Amino acid sequence: MSSRILHPGLRGRLMSADLAAALIHDGDNVGMSGFTGSGSPKVVPQALARRIDDAHHRGEHFRIGVWTGASTSAELDGALAKVNAMDLRLPYQSDPQCRARINAGQMDYIDVHLSHVAQYVWFGFFGPLDVAVVEVAGILEDGRLIPSTSIGNNKTWLEQAGKVILEVNSWQPAGLEGMHDVYYGTERPPHRKPIPLVHPNDRIGEPYLKVDLDKVVAVVETHHADKSAEFSPPDATSRAIAGHILDFLQHEVKHGRLPAELLPLQSGVGNIANAVLEGLNNGPFKGLTAYTEVLQDGMLEMLKSGTLASASSAALALSPAALAEFNADLDHWRRRVVLRPQEISNHPELIRRLGIIAMNGMIEADIYGNVNSTHVMGSSIMNGIGGSGDFARNAYLSIFMAPSTAKGGAISTLVPMVSHVDHTEHDVQVLVTENGLADLRGKSPRKRAELIIQHCAHPSFRPELQDYLERARAGASGQHTPHLLDEALSWHGRYLKTGHMR
Amino acid sequence: MSSRILHPGLRGRLMSADLAAALIHDGDNVGMSGFTGSGSPKVVPQALARRIDDAHHRGEHFRIGVWTGASTSAELDGALAKVNAMDLRLPYQSDPQCRARINAGQMDYIDVHLSHVAQYVWFGFFGPLDVAVVEVAGILEDGRLIPSTSIGNNKTWLEQAGKVILEVNSWQPAGLEGMHDVYYGTERPPHRKPIPLVHPNDRIGEPYLKVDLDKVVAVVETHHADKSAEFSPPDATSRAIAGHILDFLQHEVKHGRLPAELLPLQSGVGNIANAVLEGLNNGPFKGLTAYTEVLQDGMLEMLKSGTLASASSAALALSPAALAEFNADLDHWRRRVVLRPQEISNHPELIRRLGIIAMNGMIEADIYGNVNSTHVMGSSIMNGIGGSGDFARNAYLSIFMAPSTAKGGAISTLVPMVSHVDHTEHDVQVLVTENGLADLRGKSPRKRAELIIQHCAHPSFRPELQDYLERARAGASGQHTPHLLDEALSWHGRYLKTGHMR
Repeated sequence: MSSRILHPGLRGRLMSADLAAALIHDGDNVGMSGFTGSGSPKVVPQALARRIDDAHHRGEHFRIGVWTGASTSAELDGALAKVNAMDLRLPYQSDPQCRARINAGQMDYIDVHLSHVAQYVWFGFFGPLDVAVVEVAGILEDGRLIPSTSIGNNKTWLEQAGKVILEVNSWQPAGLEGMHDVYYGTERPPHRKPIPLVHPNDRIGEPYLKVDLDKVVAVVETHHADKSAEFSPPDATSRAIAGHILDFLQHEVKHGRLPAELLPLQSGVGNIANAVLEGLNNGPFKGLTAYTEVLQDGMLEMLKSGTLASASSAALALSPAALAEFNADLDHWRRRVVLRPQEISNHPELIRRLGIIAMNGMIEADIYGNVNSTHVMGSSIMNGIGGSGDFARNAYLSIFMAPSTAKGGAISTLVPMVSHVDHTEHDVQVLVTENGLADLRGKSPRKRAELIIQHCAHPSFRPELQDYLERARAGASGQHTPHLLDEALSWHGRYLKTGHMR
Repeated sequence: MSSRILHPGLRGRLMSADLAAALIHDGDNVGMSGFTGSGSPKVVPQALARRIDDAHHRGEHFRIGVWTGASTSAELDGALAKVNAMDLRLPYQSDPQCRARINAGQMDYIDVHLSHVAQYVWFGFFGPLDVAVVEVAGILEDGRLIPSTSIGNNKTWLEQAGKVILEVNSWQPAGLEGMHDVYYGTERPPHRKPIPLVHPNDRIGEPYLKVDLDKVVAVVETHHADKSAEFSPPDATSRAIAGHILDFLQHEVKHGRLPAELLPLQSGVGNIANAVLEGLNNGPFKGLTAYTEVLQDGMLEMLKSGTLASASSAALALSPAALAEFNADLDHWRRRVVLRPQEISNHPELIRRLGIIAMNGMIEADIYGNVNSTHVMGSSIMNGIGGSGDFARNAYLSIFMAPSTAKGGAISTLVPMVSHVDHTEHDVQVLVTENGLADLRGKSPRKRAELIIQHCAHPSFRPELQDYLERARAGASGQHTPHLLDEALSWHGRYLKTGHMR
């Protein structure tokens, strides 16, 4: 295993996960690698969770702030949340135990646009970063680091942390070397320059992460698999959503509003997104590109078929089977895939320049096209906004999609007013459910409402939405965005009381 | 007067405003110049309003779509709204008659981020632009155009419109020539390149607008003043808001989170914004810069004193007295002031690169830091989002400010839940009222609520907000962003019923 650690000095700092975890203290802010299930540290967070749990049993105060790339694995968020080790978590999570702690009011959570995280740390807005815990695939003789299956905020954690703990994971294939593009040209204002990326597949940086070797206080060897999620095969609902999007994109090409090879795709992660990618893969398009946060199974299939010529992302988010296939032919994929820091994968400058087609899921939308990506019934966090705001605001086309109902039909995804807003009407151009697609571009709020109710709402909720709109048009205090404030949120209130929105 | 029209061919197309207005037809989309009261066409819109009014009296259908830079003057929005001439208006307005038509449901209005307008027209998202009506200060011998006191979207209107009508306004000083910087390097994706601006005062384009001379169907001579608004002198409330912001900026410099000369300032328009600028002008700062949408009186004072070294904007928004002072010494100001197209003044790439300090007004904010910039009681539009989203999302620091009450204390600016969201919690870092400043950076929603209630709310509403928060923390369905959905909007409902939020 130790052939992955070629720098003699860092070899000398090899230690156990328990000893490394002992270097983290109560009150520390800890920057961890990890973006989706990929590339998070595997053993130090678990050793740290044991250390903190022991301290709690001794009656000692021991809680930390945990900053990551995005969501991580049960070995990180799950292990730490289980023992109530986190005082604060940012910027995105999707772990059930972590979510439960947040929604019980037992830990603080800050939901941040993924493109903002690194710069806010550089600006000093989150306070000092005490420790970085970063998984790497290897260490070169000169101390440079081969990144793992995600980059996320690792560049910033390594640069900003007072102490650095490296997990060298020999389970990660050595062939990952050269897959990454770490841009070292970012600065704080007023010293920023244009970022010289003009094509999704451009390489503008270096394949390695750098670290001040004096800051490395521990190196831990591991051999643990990334915990990647399985995708469900597309069902009729997700296939219908995919079909509407495919029709729309073809319509846009036909009318000259998109080139034949479209524009770079961004896709959220999850089963609906994967179904849309499958739909694109079975469609007429060839030679597409992707500039996105995560490379999931659907994109790998598109790369295999040639539908997708290249993909840029901040992380792999492949199922175990797809990951095995990817790892088996890294020399092939290295020419087609670039992994980048999330401040670059999600950078507003680049998303606007490239003209991304952004496709993101949602929890609910209202009849005027405001989207809630994060909160269940206005109060409970689901995961977080992730990069959806980076992409939606700056995209060429901003598409949001979801099934039109949830909880077996008890919840309508389309409501009079969303219980929380993550994407305002200004940033939502297209809404899609299995029932249809509402093209909201160039439409006033009242015209949006008609389109959304007609095309997107589930038939079982459509009459009630129409009734709300008509009564609002008759009785609201103004007719730009007519609302009846006494009942705008009553569907959610009813669900909380009765278990059904109707 | 005609010495302003040096191109012989265009001199040959001189005609009256009435004849020019006769070239605009029912159903046309018309792109007009104008950004604040500056640089809008003065006589053709009024002639058009008469023409449309006559048609309506004859029982004919005649309504048009009007696209502008931002708000315009009573001669444009007011005249056309008065005769119900507009089917659709975008992207920003502030005219009382226009607002009344929208809120009565008599005309459609699309509220668009100002940086998005030009590109959406280029993308074809708003349909074809039939006519451009653009005020210029003069026409060169080769047909290039000297822009007027605003640029707004004029470059795009001239390029995209099928027909062009020019108003050559000899009231505008000839010395405006050379003040402008029109960037011709924008493209549609996938052909976009980095925009080479790295300092707020950089000139990256040309001082003139270009037009395909074959498209110019009419040239109209005018000699009419811009209708600029007067500012009220700062009152105790706006001075208090300014004081809190000044203290905060000094605190940030002291802690190394801002350089001594700060970062480029963006300021919304209006009396509060002007008071903040006056406060900055009386503060300790020197050699600041501005990268903003509008140059208002406060910034001119800062330029005069040397507090501000340079200012970049899309328009002048000076009071008559300040405008006279500006016009009297254009050779001086031309070295310190750049007027740009709004796609450049508001470009996310540039706002993020420069690291702007964004200061914008608001209608209301909620206890979790979501901001409503546009809607009164959730349904009626006030003006529009303008550029506040372009700046807030991409700023180094995003500050929103307002007095803590309105309507003589009947309305609390701080409410349990805003009745409309334009800027989500993700984009709001600092909230300021006359009572104090809440620094929300790195704070979870529940901590934000405590800060906002404590520092920003008016004492007469503070106990009720605190009571709402405590009951939400006890009874909400989740504790990340605790809300009681049955009463979250009840303050607005109560105001609509009783005229008071309490």
